[in-house]
Amino acid sequence: MDHAGRLRRLEKALSENELDFLLVTHLPNIRYLSGFTGSSAALLVGERGLVLFTDGRYREQAKQEVKKARIVIGSKAPSVAAVESLASQRLRGGRRCLGIEPESLTAGLHHRLGSLLRGKVRMRFAPSLIERARMVKDGEEIRRIRDAVRLGASLFSVARNRIRPGEREVEVAAAMEYAARRGGAEGMSFPTIVASGPRSAIVHGRASLARIPGRGFVVCDFGVILAGYCSDRTRTVHLGQPSHDERAFYRAVREAQQAAIDCARLGVSTGDVDDAARSVLRKWKLAKYFTHSTGHGLGLEIHEGPRLAAGRTETLEAGMVVTIEPGAYIPGKRGVRIEDVVLITASGCEPLDATEKDLVLL
Amino acid sequence: MDHAGRLRRLEKALSENELDFLLVTHLPNIRYLSGFTGSSAALLVGERGLVLFTDGRYREQAKQEVKKARIVIGSKAPSVAAVESLASQRLRGGRRCLGIEPESLTAGLHHRLGSLLRGKVRMRFAPSLIERARMVKDGEEIRRIRDAVRLGASLFSVARNRIRPGEREVEVAAAMEYAARRGGAEGMSFPTIVASGPRSAIVHGRASLARIPGRGFVVCDFGVILAGYCSDRTRTVHLGQPSHDERAFYRAVREAQQAAIDCARLGVSTGDVDDAARSVLRKWKLAKYFTHSTGHGLGLEIHEGPRLAAGRTETLEAGMVVTIEPGAYIPGKRGVRIEDVVLITASGCEPLDATEKDLVLL
Repeated sequence: MDHAGRLRRLEKALSENELDFLLVTHLPNIRYLSGFTGSSAALLVGERGLVLFTDGRYREQAKQEVKKARIVIGSKAPSVAAVESLASQRLRGGRRCLGIEPESLTAGLHHRLGSLLRGKVRMRFAPSLIERARMVKDGEEIRRIRDAVRLGASLFSVARNRIRPGEREVEVAAAMEYAARRGGAEGMSFPTIVASGPRSAIVHGRASLARIPGRGFVVCDFGVILAGYCSDRTRTVHLGQPSHDERAFYRAVREAQQAAIDCARLGVSTGDVDDAARSVLRKWKLAKYFTHSTGHGLGLEIHEGPRLAAGRTETLEAGMVVTIEPGAYIPGKRGVRIEDVVLITASGCEPLDATEKDLVLL
Repeated sequence: MDHAGRLRRLEKALSENELDFLLVTHLPNIRYLSGFTGSSAALLVGERGLVLFTDGRYREQAKQEVKKARIVIGSKAPSVAAVESLASQRLRGGRRCLGIEPESLTAGLHHRLGSLLRGKVRMRFAPSLIERARMVKDGEEIRRIRDAVRLGASLFSVARNRIRPGEREVEVAAAMEYAARRGGAEGMSFPTIVASGPRSAIVHGRASLARIPGRGFVVCDFGVILAGYCSDRTRTVHLGQPSHDERAFYRAVREAQQAAIDCARLGVSTGDVDDAARSVLRKWKLAKYFTHSTGHGLGLEIHEGPRLAAGRTETLEAGMVVTIEPGAYIPGKRGVRIEDVVLITASGCEPLDATEKDLVLL
C-alpha cells in the first residue's frame, strides 16, 4: 500500500485546513495511513511525521506491520498517551492547532484530552479528511476488493446447496462462513443474513435458529473480509412455486437494481442513483416498502462513504466502489433484496460480480 | 430477562445521582435494559418510562424484541431523534438534567446534542450506572454464559484434531468456527486466535495464512456468542517434544493461572487476583513477559468490568463472571496462555469449564 503517498496528501489537506496536528483515532483510518491492524491505537500526524501509540499486547505486531511511523508502547489509553506526548513537546512559533476526529473520539475522552492540553495546543473538530480520501480507491485497494468480492460471490453457491425446507437458517450461514474461512477470509464483514419465509421482511434478519419453511423467499446477505477489504452481496431465492404476485415483486426489485446500476457513473449524484431505484419501485407501487437507502461505499469498512440515499448530493468519482442494493419488504409477509458491488470507472460502472440475477427457484 | 427489575434499579440510581433522564447509547446497555439487539438505537430513560429510537430497518425487529418501551422509528441518528423529542416536551418544574454515557457518545454527537437542547435541559456525563449493574449477573444471565462457555469449550477438541504441521492456522480457526455455528452460536465473540511457533508470542495473533511449523507452542484463544452472551477460553498445545525450558515455561503459566483462580473470591480485590498470577511468574523470572492483565468480566460483551489488573481496587462480588488468563511471551520465540471463565459465588470461585490443563502434546 502507498502509505507514503497517503501521508503526503493528508499533510497537504491538514495545511489547507490550518491544522498543525491530527490525532487519528478511527482504527480503519490508522490502518489506511500506517498499516497497523491492532484494536487499540492512536496515530499522531504532525511536524515530526507519524507516531503510533499502542499497548504492550501489540509490540510485536506493530513492529511487523508499521514501517513509516515511530512506535510508542504504553499502558494508558493510546489517545491519552498521544496528547500527553504532544503537551510535553516544546513547540516553537505561535499557538498550535490539533485536529481530532469527532466521530471516533468519545465525549469522555475528548473532555479528558482537553484538560491534558491545558490550552497549550488548541483542539478542534477536523473535517473527515481521511474518510474523504478513502472514498476513492487506488489500484491495490481495487485489486483487494475484487478478490474479496470474488470470494464472497462464491458463497452463494454454498447457500444454494444448503437451503432446503426444514434446514435451520444458521446452518446455511455456518456452511457459507466455513467456505469463506477456507478461502482465506479473516472473517465476515457483517453478521450473515439468512432470512426465510416471513423473516425475509426483516431487513437485517441475521441467520437464526428458525427452520426454513416449505415455501417463500429466502434473503441471503453476506460478505467477507479478505486482506483487510470487505465484500457485500445479496441474493434472494424462492422455495416452491412463486405466485404471480411474488414473481412481480421480485421483478420489481430486479428492475430497480438494474436502473440504479445503469444510472451510476462518474459525475452523477448519489441521490440520483437512489432515485433511479426508487422510481422503478414507485412505478410498481412498492416504494413505501423500500425502507432503506440504495447503497454505500465499502473498502476497509463495510460501510464507508459515499452513501447512495435520497437527497444526497455527493458526486460519483472514478475509483469509488459502492453497493447497489434496493429491496422491498412487506412486514410479516415477504422481502426481496438484490445487491452487487460496482466500481465507478472513467467510462461507466463495472459490476465486480456480474452474475445471473433471475429468480432462483429451489 | 428481568427488564422491569433492571429498569427499576436504574431509576433509583438515576434519582440518587440527581439525573432526570438518561440517554443510553451503548448498544449492549440498550439490549440489557430493553432486549433490543439491532445495531442502531438510542434509549431514553425518564419520567415517561423507556422510549427506544431506531430506524426503518428495525421496525419489525423492534416490535418483536422490545416489550417494555415505546418504539419510535425515524430517519435521523437515534440519539438526535431522542434529544429532539426531549427538547420538544413541556417539562414542568425546574430545569432538568439529562445524563449521557460519555464513552459511547462521540464528541461530534455530544456537541450536536448540546446545540439541540439549547440550554433547556442541562446535559452532563453520567457515571457508568448500567455497566456497574451489568457486572453482577442474574440467574438467567449465568445460565446463558454457562451455555456459551460449554459450547466454546467444545471447540478445543475440534482444534486438537486439526492442529498438525503444515496446516494453515486459518483452517484450524475455520473448523472451530464452523462447529460453533452448527452449535447455534450467533458468531464468535472476537477474532479467533490460532498462533503457532514464534507467532505464539503475538498476544493477539489472529489465525493467519501461516502454516503451523513442525514444533513449538500453538496458542488457541476463542469464544462464541450464544443467545447474546460471550464465552472466552485459551488453551496452548505443543507440537513435537518440548525442551526442558518449554516445559518449565508452560508449568509457570499453569501455576500462575491456578494461583489466580485460588485467590479469586468474594471480597478480594481485582488487583490482588492479578498479583497472585504475577507473583508466581515473578518467582519463575517470567514476570516481564506477562504483558497484559490477568482477566476481565464478560457477558453481553467480551470485555466488561471488572478488570483484573495491577493496582485495581474493585472488590469481587458474588455473581461476577470473569476470565483468568495469565500468559508469558518471549518475542520471536514462544508464548503460552491459559484461560478459563470463573463465576464468583457466595462460597468461592467456580470455574465454568473445569477441564484438564496439563500440557497437550500433538
